[in-house]
Amino acid sequence: MNFPHLESFYSVLEIIEPYINRTPIITSSSINKKFNLDIYFKLELMQKTGSFKARGAVNKVLKLSDEERLRGVVAISAGNHAQATSWACSQFGIKSKIVMPHTASKSKINATKSYGGDVVLTKGKMMDTCQELIDKENLIFVHPFDDQDIISGQGTVSLEVINEIKTLDYAFISIGGGGLISGMACFLKQINPNIKVIGVEPVNSNVMTKSIESGKPQNFDTLKNKTIADTLAAPFAGNLTFEYVKKYVDEIINVSEEEMIESLKVMIERLKIVPEPAASACFVPIIFNKLKIPNKSKCLVVVCGGNIDLSNIKSLF
Amino acid sequence: MNFPHLESFYSVLEIIEPYINRTPIITSSSINKKFNLDIYFKLELMQKTGSFKARGAVNKVLKLSDEERLRGVVAISAGNHAQATSWACSQFGIKSKIVMPHTASKSKINATKSYGGDVVLTKGKMMDTCQELIDKENLIFVHPFDDQDIISGQGTVSLEVINEIKTLDYAFISIGGGGLISGMACFLKQINPNIKVIGVEPVNSNVMTKSIESGKPQNFDTLKNKTIADTLAAPFAGNLTFEYVKKYVDEIINVSEEEMIESLKVMIERLKIVPEPAASACFVPIIFNKLKIPNKSKCLVVVCGGNIDLSNIKSLF
Repeated sequence: MNFPHLESFYSVLEIIEPYINRTPIITSSSINKKFNLDIYFKLELMQKTGSFKARGAVNKVLKLSDEERLRGVVAISAGNHAQATSWACSQFGIKSKIVMPHTASKSKINATKSYGGDVVLTKGKMMDTCQELIDKENLIFVHPFDDQDIISGQGTVSLEVINEIKTLDYAFISIGGGGLISGMACFLKQINPNIKVIGVEPVNSNVMTKSIESGKPQNFDTLKNKTIADTLAAPFAGNLTFEYVKKYVDEIINVSEEEMIESLKVMIERLKIVPEPAASACFVPIIFNKLKIPNKSKCLVVVCGGNIDLSNIKSLF
Repeated sequence: MNFPHLESFYSVLEIIEPYINRTPIITSSSINKKFNLDIYFKLELMQKTGSFKARGAVNKVLKLSDEERLRGVVAISAGNHAQATSWACSQFGIKSKIVMPHTASKSKINATKSYGGDVVLTKGKMMDTCQELIDKENLIFVHPFDDQDIISGQGTVSLEVINEIKTLDYAFISIGGGGLISGMACFLKQINPNIKVIGVEPVNSNVMTKSIESGKPQNFDTLKNKTIADTLAAPFAGNLTFEYVKKYVDEIINVSEEEMIESLKVMIERLKIVPEPAASACFVPIIFNKLKIPNKSKCLVVVCGGNIDLSNIKSLF
């Protein structure tokens, strides 16, 4: 497989930069002191639409031809990719249909609508509904993660980090479908192969872990276990993202529901931010000492999103 | 009275810059759309020690002579100034005693201790205990707000804002003792007298409002009403801060407890940050339409601090 070169990531960042936020990177002296590390939190929860997903979505939409733009777009998502695709299309006056499960949270449905997307709720399989729309309305499908333009867009997070921090020893990145870690790891390992890229998955939804273990992309027909990190609950690993993870990711660590909640509390109290559990997940390996990290290592924690309802925050504690 | 010139603020920022964070400024498209304004949130809750107070404290400590540094420092505070003074002194190996009320929250007492300060809890009047320590141990008193070096330090927030945003139409700034608004307004009005500086006080603790109304600094012997914005509950207006506010602040708006809580919820949900109520207070005038602001005005909201316990967050909702 051909993986993108460094230069292509810079080109992608250049074309998406007018649309996205350059999100802040913060540190906490008390957290650094406690763990004897230099930890950099990249606040993608302050990205447009509340998650890194805006990067890939706008890159994908920018790459569409005029003819494709006229046809319109369809996407499937229970959350962040829904909002991101709806938002990205609205930047260019492209119509979008977003297939969401009927169980999606009201706030995510409303947010998706507020960006201009046409939400289609389904009780059946999202991909079936999506395929019907493609067949009937000739729409362009925007995959939530298994697409080269999506992966390259998400990868631009790491360019901003390297631009500001210069180098890293570790990067901790959550895995849902694997789009974010694929793009970021591909860039980081080319910049410096010594950067250890650590993926993080909920043990209750670890399709990439199982895929790497078994040597091929797995498909969880039904998710037997639920996770509070709803945006990491991908039912299958992508064909592309599997290849990226196999090539570029050093290790995947599985984390429990309780660990993600504890991490969320620490981040709220010490960093004054409200990540979603998918984002607090990737701070878990540090808090719970899941791997041996040399003192003073420069660690990146990607706070990938913050789309969580107030009622959920309350119920977690 | 002589007020500091622009240049003196730049000098102060230059000397304190190695110690403090240049905090991020964020915007939210959905919030801007909702209010038809350009609102910039300056995240001083991501400042060292979790509030802007670090700026004034480190400036004050930097100005001490060698002889004064050897004597050590004493401060009175229920919260943010306690942490800031303890932290600032620890940067230079100066001993500090921090007088706090015995009712202060455990987390604030612990945070103050963690920075190296020696916490003295009192059931009596804080200033009496403080005076005893000054008499007995010859310590240098660091006032929480009524001190020129403190005021100039806090004022540096506005330099970072103007550096990034260039100009403003409105600045919304909370008032406790008035140190922050004094420094910021003095700078902003000299940069551009058309910037409207709006102070915000809880109606349950509005000593500056009462001072301006009566034409002289008032002293609330006992605070009859309690406010959830504990860090705004100053029992008196400073002699200096009163003069600054009289000269430079256009208007003070009083806000209710319910309004601050509602504002806090909006900031958590839409901005993904966790301000303390003192900080959510100054977004209230916009949310509750307390003054007529022309469409598309550039508005600064200073998110002054984020020192709030998780248990408090839960209990507010």
